Amino acid sequence: MRVVGIDPGTATTGYGVVQDRGHGLEAVAYGVVTTAPFLPLEQRLAQLFDELSALIQRFRPESAAVEQLFFQRNVRTAMAVGQARGVTLLALAKAGLSVGEYSPLEVKQAVTGYGGADKNQVQQMVRLLLNLSEIPRPDDAADALAVAICHLHHLRTAQQWTP
Amino acid sequence: MRVVGIDPGTATTGYGVVQDRGHGLEAVAYGVVTTAPFLPLEQRLAQLFDELSALIQRFRPESAAVEQLFFQRNVRTAMAVGQARGVTLLALAKAGLSVGEYSPLEVKQAVTGYGGADKNQVQQMVRLLLNLSEIPRPDDAADALAVAICHLHHLRTAQQWTP
Repeated sequence: MRVVGIDPGTATTGYGVVQDRGHGLEAVAYGVVTTAPFLPLEQRLAQLFDELSALIQRFRPESAAVEQLFFQRNVRTAMAVGQARGVTLLALAKAGLSVGEYSPLEVKQAVTGYGGADKNQVQQMVRLLLNLSEIPRPDDAADALAVAICHLHHLRTAQQWTP
Repeated sequence: MRVVGIDPGTATTGYGVVQDRGHGLEAVAYGVVTTAPFLPLEQRLAQLFDELSALIQRFRPESAAVEQLFFQRNVRTAMAVGQARGVTLLALAKAGLSVGEYSPLEVKQAVTGYGGADKNQVQQMVRLLLNLSEIPRPDDAADALAVAICHLHHLRTAQQWTP
């Protein structure tokens, strides 16, 4: 089972493709999609859509997950993140993928077993679970990998998939 | 010059296509795109994208405008509207349209000449400017027509277009 986790933003969107091989998890690919700040907003969103669509076509995940984000700093930030999130969900739907949505608490619990874990603890667990030598960088990519791990955990627990 | 104004939302998105004929404005088409509440969010956003793309192809506006909305009631609402707004901007960019963004104050001023106008006054002016016998319904369609009128006003003032 291969899933993609995405952490959307207008300037920087993190992605992480994780394969569950039954005996362990593997990071197939991770990184960020950035958009050109000098472009009009609608062009940046088109760039994001095109690059995400290309990544999905390249790495062919079977399912997708995005964090539920209701706790933005303010309304302006929420609107900006919402725009990128809408385009992300559209790219996933257009690729025929179902989308799991998880709260930050669910992601922490799935990755570390503890909802009160801090950012560094989550990143260290992502590193360990994926057998990486270092914490994945940048943060948006690490966050996306955490969401992907949470989604695999959920699919297994819900017995929607057995290795 | 023909423009489309859009008032985005996940459940209901208003649209209004307005033609400036030099001697006056004409409402070419207006209404709302609704999405099925029982569908997953990503499918609703795909539905919105497809219907907006079809409307643009049908009515062939030369430019587009969307309201700037930084004054949502709360972060949750802002995120939801942001998602629909992102998909709307993407549909416009994919159709090759440039997008004007106007604050609610700019829209009121362009339509009524007075930034303190109330909702009913704006709707009455939209009706008068477009020579309609009644106020356009529903509200989302009237709001979209107001944004389209504001955009035409701006294009004329900026001398980007002369009838």
